[in-house]
Amino acid sequence: MNSYEKFLSSLAKNIKASEIRELLAVIRTKKDVISLAGGLPDPQTFPKEIIAKMAEKVVAEYGDYSLQYSETKGIYEVRETLAKFLKDIRGFETSPDDLLITTGSQQALYLISRTLIDPGDVVITENPSYLAALGAFKMCGANIVGVKIDEHGMKTDLLEETVKRLVSEGKKIKFIYVIPVSQNPAGTTMSSERKKHLIEIANKYDLLVLEDDPYSYFVYEEGVDVTAIKALDTEDRVIYISTISKILAPGLRIGWIASPKHLSRKLELVKQYLDLHSPTLNQYILAEILKTSLIKEHVRKLAPFYKVKRDTMLKAIEEYFPDDIWYTKPIGGLFVFVYVNVPGFNAVKLLNTAVEKYKVAYVPGKSFHTDGSGENSMRLNFSYPPPEMIEEGIRRLGELIKNKG
Amino acid sequence: MNSYEKFLSSLAKNIKASEIRELLAVIRTKKDVISLAGGLPDPQTFPKEIIAKMAEKVVAEYGDYSLQYSETKGIYEVRETLAKFLKDIRGFETSPDDLLITTGSQQALYLISRTLIDPGDVVITENPSYLAALGAFKMCGANIVGVKIDEHGMKTDLLEETVKRLVSEGKKIKFIYVIPVSQNPAGTTMSSERKKHLIEIANKYDLLVLEDDPYSYFVYEEGVDVTAIKALDTEDRVIYISTISKILAPGLRIGWIASPKHLSRKLELVKQYLDLHSPTLNQYILAEILKTSLIKEHVRKLAPFYKVKRDTMLKAIEEYFPDDIWYTKPIGGLFVFVYVNVPGFNAVKLLNTAVEKYKVAYVPGKSFHTDGSGENSMRLNFSYPPPEMIEEGIRRLGELIKNKG
Repeated sequence: MNSYEKFLSSLAKNIKASEIRELLAVIRTKKDVISLAGGLPDPQTFPKEIIAKMAEKVVAEYGDYSLQYSETKGIYEVRETLAKFLKDIRGFETSPDDLLITTGSQQALYLISRTLIDPGDVVITENPSYLAALGAFKMCGANIVGVKIDEHGMKTDLLEETVKRLVSEGKKIKFIYVIPVSQNPAGTTMSSERKKHLIEIANKYDLLVLEDDPYSYFVYEEGVDVTAIKALDTEDRVIYISTISKILAPGLRIGWIASPKHLSRKLELVKQYLDLHSPTLNQYILAEILKTSLIKEHVRKLAPFYKVKRDTMLKAIEEYFPDDIWYTKPIGGLFVFVYVNVPGFNAVKLLNTAVEKYKVAYVPGKSFHTDGSGENSMRLNFSYPPPEMIEEGIRRLGELIKNKG
Repeated sequence: MNSYEKFLSSLAKNIKASEIRELLAVIRTKKDVISLAGGLPDPQTFPKEIIAKMAEKVVAEYGDYSLQYSETKGIYEVRETLAKFLKDIRGFETSPDDLLITTGSQQALYLISRTLIDPGDVVITENPSYLAALGAFKMCGANIVGVKIDEHGMKTDLLEETVKRLVSEGKKIKFIYVIPVSQNPAGTTMSSERKKHLIEIANKYDLLVLEDDPYSYFVYEEGVDVTAIKALDTEDRVIYISTISKILAPGLRIGWIASPKHLSRKLELVKQYLDLHSPTLNQYILAEILKTSLIKEHVRKLAPFYKVKRDTMLKAIEEYFPDDIWYTKPIGGLFVFVYVNVPGFNAVKLLNTAVEKYKVAYVPGKSFHTDGSGENSMRLNFSYPPPEMIEEGIRRLGELIKNKG
């Protein structure tokens, strides 16, 4: 055959592997490199015995149902159990009818994008924001407009200015996407005031909010307000998504959408064509775990476990990094984000040197930025490596930064 | 809020629940109605003990890996095992690098559509064809052109005429979609000659073929040629998809694509945004089963089990239906398809009467047709109901047809 190019959709013609992802794949094969580049939870935390036991129990008790086709929105009983869990842990009411079980939160992001976005529509995000979310939005043709963040999350005064400008330009804003707690990549958490202001803006300008909330279920500090934005929503404007990837295990691929009443049905109809429904067995496993106190006990153990790793990273940064940096002190999540305020510091260009010479890897922060900025930033993961590797990795990175290569 | 309409993509604005699907949902709640409308495998056939045992084994042996994030294309070991299985059972060579594990074959259909189809592109299908495939193609903007079938499958002489015409009109044909063995809905199987002719046409006109093959892994007759079209392909033009839904259990949601070498990478990049990867645990369960002889033993038991049900349906049709019908005698799969050659017979309009008066349900065949025809057709499922219900259901349907309502 001459060429496959002519068979591709314009999407597929233009889609490219991320250079970073390729590089990271190479890094994984180098055993002497300490990688702070990943985004994986520590598999030590996976409740293997519980999941194995529940898998067996589910097949024994639900038998045929656990292996059969099931509803596109998710098994009703699972949604019912999940609705109670969300009320209990995240403080908002949702009807099982407005819950959709998805194949991980990545599918939630794509499904929502496909249901809401037409090419040219605007999606407002934090700048920087989660790469795979930006990818899903762009795949559906979104025009991404980023709003700056500081340690209290998205700067909502700038958000309002941005919304006003876009409205005056006649742009169609489809939603505002935020990760309010322990944001990926920046590690920031939105303050109570900012969350309230965000909802006020959504109400005032008649907008939807997409709240992505994988990290709030356990945090490393007491007394931090992690109220869900959806719990503040009085006009049914917030689409809430989350996942069990960080609280149980990512390999089960179970996420969910708590949707505004008016969108649930459309999301269901679109999901039918994406994968008919998410795995029945895995849904039942989740429901069985949620019915017990195991989930709360498990989540309670996660916080101190990861806190040690976060503290190790922050302490090492304090010790080994030069002073002219800005970095987040995350109350939860998996990442610390660093801006190096040294003229000419380019984390993208330096990655190869970091890996080859200093034997340490990170994710350059540039690709998370919506405006091409962030060449001087890096995302550092503390959830996966053991504490001694975190310290040594940060020491090596400190050398790189001080030597500028 | 005034209205959610303005937030919807044009896709979501236009997407509609199928009236049939809605009606079938109502029917499921009526206990006195015999439904021949479903498409479910008989859960009695699910190897529950094997799956429960393997789930436990996988978590015990692969531990952390079985619950962690994994590769977008699927776990390498799983693809390797699957490649051997496909060589063994379906007779074609495929590299693990060109296999992608999908979240059911529905995701395979959507993923391929999204990777190949731009709005206005042509997809050629059998007429009638599988509803959820037609839906996925249309969702990506395909212009569907159907080619008539008879008991030997797609009429390839008509296919060639159609291709010639479309080419002369300057249309872009993205692929020819066929279910060669025990087609859904029609129950037909392509003859050896037609399969060869199809490949010749693909080669001659430089086209891709999408072969959907859920049903060939066990059939009810000996000596039928069920060679995969992909096994006849010498120019790497066939995209082959299948699933474990009919040979093990649908609730695990595992399907796969055996892709032409030049498409694998693009499919992988698009899948990243759809759901990152399919469930790790479920993939390992499949691989463990494929490694043993359990799968072959299991599949060997399925054929006689379903043959009894098929025979029951065919015998009952012979006995209770009038003569002026045309129906398929499927060698495999789950369905018999019936055209009633009585002027004015409208299976869509009669469904309500069938359910309310005769207490029997079927799927009207019209929605499977690509050209608005087929009002006089019905799809009848024999895999799910027990034999006595099949017989009684067909008897009731016979009454309906004879009485024309």
